[in-house]
Amino acid sequence: MWQVPERFWVTSGKSEGGTALNAFDNALLTAGIGNLNLIRVSSVLPKGAMRMYERPGHFPEGTLSPMVYSVAESVMPGEIIASCVGVGRAHNSYGVIFEHAGVLSAAEAEATVRRQVEEAFARRGLALDELILESCQHRVEHFGCTVAAVMLW
Amino acid sequence: MWQVPERFWVTSGKSEGGTALNAFDNALLTAGIGNLNLIRVSSVLPKGAMRMYERPGHFPEGTLSPMVYSVAESVMPGEIIASCVGVGRAHNSYGVIFEHAGVLSAAEAEATVRRQVEEAFARRGLALDELILESCQHRVEHFGCTVAAVMLW
Amino acid sequence: MWQVPERFWVTSGKSEGGTALNAFDNALLTAGIGNLNLIRVSSVLPKGAMRMYERPGHFPEGTLSPMVYSVAESVMPGEIIASCVGVGRAHNSYGVIFEHAGVLSAAEAEATVRRQVEEAFARRGLALDELILESCQHRVEHFGCTVAAVMLW
Repeated sequence: MWQVPERFWVTSGKSEGGTALNAFDNALLTAGIGNLNLIRVSSVLPKGAMRMYERPGHFPEGTLSPMVYSVAESVMPGEIIASCVGVGRAHNSYGVIFEHAGVLSAAEAEATVRRQVEEAFARRGLALDELILESCQHRVEHFGCTVAAVMLW
Repeated sequence: MWQVPERFWVTSGKSEGGTALNAFDNALLTAGIGNLNLIRVSSVLPKGAMRMYERPGHFPEGTLSPMVYSVAESVMPGEIIASCVGVGRAHNSYGVIFEHAGVLSAAEAEATVRRQVEEAFARRGLALDELILESCQHRVEHFGCTVAAVMLW
Repeated sequence: MWQVPERFWVTSGKSEGGTALNAFDNALLTAGIGNLNLIRVSSVLPKGAMRMYERPGHFPEGTLSPMVYSVAESVMPGEIIASCVGVGRAHNSYGVIFEHAGVLSAAEAEATVRRQVEEAFARRGLALDELILESCQHRVEHFGCTVAAVMLW
């Protein structure tokens, strides 16, 4: 606790499951984070945090892992759901992480997250140098789930 | 953070309270975890984690404690609510922890958690060696709450 | 993890925003905690924890920070929303932290939190020596949010 993460990894996944919670578990597995103990956090990117492009392999199963994530779940067959996370970065400054999810398309989720990050930067007087968007979309069969996440370490 | 818990303890409790939040607080006290600062996590059992059968006594009040828990609350007099957690274990492997709660019986909550754990093991290609189920059920008087929890440390 | 906080700081804030999540972000900024990575905890004050009266300045942006907080959000123009946290303290003992928020006045939120803390103390057989209440109220324009929080470290 009271630590400052130095690295981040952006990922997403989608799945069906036999129950709502299994659909979530399966989506997390698809995203590569299903075997961690997620601790939900809200949601600032520390200054100097490095983007990693591969799933960190050195955390044993069950590691307590702070994570920003957005989840959409639905049991309506045929419905389109999507999750998005967005990481806004600035040179020589901290950044922010926003998220949006629900019964909508990935494009719509991304549009909302883009607007959120832009407002958050404007409110802080920071210049947005890079916006990383990660999203996924799913057409529900029975129990569907999408998840988009930023792992911090 | 980024630690791997080595022990777990399974517990549950139920209570009435003067407000919904007090009912929750009282249920946590009944379960033996009401004086900790709970941090909700989701929900993998690390490999080799040892089951403890007594409430850990060495954590001072206010200790920041990762916990898997499921909560049911109701203000409908006479309604039956229940909470269940299930720990699925495998020899020489990590396991999973699932939970279910709501307006249902403890038996129904346990049936769902059993199904969840079985699916999570099948999805991971693991053999389920032991399933620990802990649940409690309550008939609501005014503000009722049930909680089932797995404390990790 | 498994640490025991030694200090706390009570704060609150309110804001409008372009989306619900931005209203929350802006309210956190107003409260002085918008650049931390909040980890929501529930909610015991460790014995001997010292009250601080200024925002701790030594935590870099993005620090993983356990926080008790209550949030109210509304998109109904003209609606009054409020958030309150209450810290109940006892001499030579731990205490409790409760919270209430919603579509109500700050005075109503405070009345509920007072009742919650009194019940929690009675239930534990502790004498309430001091009750710290912090609340804020907001009249919604478009996307409104209030937050009241206890930062622990």
